[in-house]
Amino acid sequence: MISDLDKIFSTSAQNMKRSAIREILKLTQRPEVISFGGGLPAPESFPIEQLKEITTEILDNDGPGSLQYSATEGVPELRQIMLDRYNEQGIKVELKNLVITTSSQQGLDLLAKIFVNRGDKIICGLPSYLGGLSAFNTYGAEMVGIKFDEHGMRSDILEEKLEELKANGEKPKFIYIIPDFQNPAGITMPEFRRIEIIALAKKYDVLIVEDSPYREIRFEGKPQRTMYELDGSGQVILLGTFSKIFVPGFRIGWVVAHEGIINKIVIAKQSADLCTPTLNQKIAHKYIEKGYFDVNLKKIIAQYHEKRDNMLKAFHEFMPDGVSWTKPEGGLFLFMTLPEYMDAEELFKKAIEKDVAFVLGSVFHCDGSGKNTMRINFSYMPMDKTTEGVKRLANAIKEMIA
Amino acid sequence: MISDLDKIFSTSAQNMKRSAIREILKLTQRPEVISFGGGLPAPESFPIEQLKEITTEILDNDGPGSLQYSATEGVPELRQIMLDRYNEQGIKVELKNLVITTSSQQGLDLLAKIFVNRGDKIICGLPSYLGGLSAFNTYGAEMVGIKFDEHGMRSDILEEKLEELKANGEKPKFIYIIPDFQNPAGITMPEFRRIEIIALAKKYDVLIVEDSPYREIRFEGKPQRTMYELDGSGQVILLGTFSKIFVPGFRIGWVVAHEGIINKIVIAKQSADLCTPTLNQKIAHKYIEKGYFDVNLKKIIAQYHEKRDNMLKAFHEFMPDGVSWTKPEGGLFLFMTLPEYMDAEELFKKAIEKDVAFVLGSVFHCDGSGKNTMRINFSYMPMDKTTEGVKRLANAIKEMIA
Repeated sequence: MISDLDKIFSTSAQNMKRSAIREILKLTQRPEVISFGGGLPAPESFPIEQLKEITTEILDNDGPGSLQYSATEGVPELRQIMLDRYNEQGIKVELKNLVITTSSQQGLDLLAKIFVNRGDKIICGLPSYLGGLSAFNTYGAEMVGIKFDEHGMRSDILEEKLEELKANGEKPKFIYIIPDFQNPAGITMPEFRRIEIIALAKKYDVLIVEDSPYREIRFEGKPQRTMYELDGSGQVILLGTFSKIFVPGFRIGWVVAHEGIINKIVIAKQSADLCTPTLNQKIAHKYIEKGYFDVNLKKIIAQYHEKRDNMLKAFHEFMPDGVSWTKPEGGLFLFMTLPEYMDAEELFKKAIEKDVAFVLGSVFHCDGSGKNTMRINFSYMPMDKTTEGVKRLANAIKEMIA
Repeated sequence: MISDLDKIFSTSAQNMKRSAIREILKLTQRPEVISFGGGLPAPESFPIEQLKEITTEILDNDGPGSLQYSATEGVPELRQIMLDRYNEQGIKVELKNLVITTSSQQGLDLLAKIFVNRGDKIICGLPSYLGGLSAFNTYGAEMVGIKFDEHGMRSDILEEKLEELKANGEKPKFIYIIPDFQNPAGITMPEFRRIEIIALAKKYDVLIVEDSPYREIRFEGKPQRTMYELDGSGQVILLGTFSKIFVPGFRIGWVVAHEGIINKIVIAKQSADLCTPTLNQKIAHKYIEKGYFDVNLKKIIAQYHEKRDNMLKAFHEFMPDGVSWTKPEGGLFLFMTLPEYMDAEELFKKAIEKDVAFVLGSVFHCDGSGKNTMRINFSYMPMDKTTEGVKRLANAIKEMIA
């Protein structure tokens, strides 16, 4: 064995931390635990029968093609049908603007790889998706956090920060935003705020990364146009995924961006995994082509809508005064805020004793703030368990207050 | 659009080049071209009917579990059955020593990520697998090439180089070796050379990365023990993949290594793609469990054996004097050497005119040498086309000589 393994790891590896969420998920895998922790889709939403039918069809008609290596850019028929979907929605995308990635997590990783040198700045929300922060951190990015109001990232603070960086001769590599049903905050950014932020990105000549895993899961209210569409100039990089609107176990995501950026992503992807699994892409294509996607998406929306309402009802019924939470118009999460003086980490220990789990809000804050916040998932648990879990959680909070 | 896109890419992205092989493959996609270029397995080796059966079975019995997110380390039943296989072969591996990766290309990428700081040295063969070189290059590694003899990497030159680096206060991050049916050289390293190189790795306190995609595809001769087994101390990191012995379109590989290294790979993988596709892993597990893997592997070996013999026969029949080639005991490639004064790149142009393609040997040489060498794949093309292709290639060479 080598003499001092720890010393030969790269700077990046020395700084790597295990994902707090995935570690918490392990803790909560006892069957008696009611977990609001993960971001798992409801297993009852998976189209098992349709997948059997489609897989058999593809293996019968395109067996060798579906099991061979495929283009790094993605399987042509899947790319085409995704373009068609965007174009139907009035979002102008051409083939050269779209690459399939092995999950949108890979999209985040490859974006960091092609843009970030150690020490480069990236602007993110307070809070932001932990997997994004981890991917950027791996390449040595320094995160600059911007506070939220009820509309998401505050544009006034963003402008101050961009101005401050400019005065120091610094330019962040991009602004990382999850505009729809934000993970973890559950907030949707209204169009006026999107436009403000795009204007700032243009003024300070900075790219925007729009991470959009939940946009199609809207229960109510008016769909917001993507920042990609609102901009239309190539300033915005849009990330999508099938994980929440089809199945996560296929690991299929995509990036829509300016041709010059897609080109670099494709080259970076060649040495990252050569190509995304072929059969999985062909299945996804057929699933859309046959119209199953649209029909099932409506079912997923209805399911999660009901689950959200059920959770809000339980919150309303059981939570003590002084606790607040967001009422997301879509997505998978709501965000909970305890009284200022309380510590969610202490609550977590109490909650686990009562067999209920959540994710600490602080892990989504690049500056370590948010100590009194928590992310609560409502998509995964059956509704009766959710009600019971919220009750237990409320009891834990009441005990801590008392 | 941002003002100067090219300038904001990372140093790594500025240096990225498109894979020469994948670009050549695009050139050669005209149906009339006989391509010895790719490293594609034979489509007739894909177990289509068995995959239909297994997929239906899994979706029936474990539908939700096979479509959900799964552990970053890999699906437990697949990891276990791979351990069992290693242990049956007398190779001691425990669960903590094995992680599933999304292709062994991802294994190479993650190894570079956890070990390489910009400017770090990695030792490789002259020649070496291009995908390895690209992955290491992405993280700013500087490759140090070691010449081959008929047994693979020369240990005398390796020692000189390690001594020279040591004198400069430098220590390479690892030695990259493909000991069995090397890509592209087709050479298998005998045990004495493996032992020499392991001894040097120990003496100079350097890790070895043993990339082993072809080891199980042996037509004749004595199987060589893996360097991982010969070492047994944790000095060697072993990479494997299902791409050539099952199907490449599933993108499943694995890394076997010291626990401390596997831990870092798992953390790096969390931010790279969270987990490898779940259904694909469950299918691979069932495929082994049902015994299909072992039966089909024998068929693949028989097929490629016949294809190799057919290609060697055509080489023997058509190639002019002054041209030499390796006679690999297994794998997918043979390596061809033209007379010293000839340039394979010129030959490539002539060959493409005659509708036959190969990969330039120089792309596998980190120092740009090997101008008169070529990699020839024999696994993909049907045998009659191979014979015709070798004839065309020989004619192109004869024309250049004349």
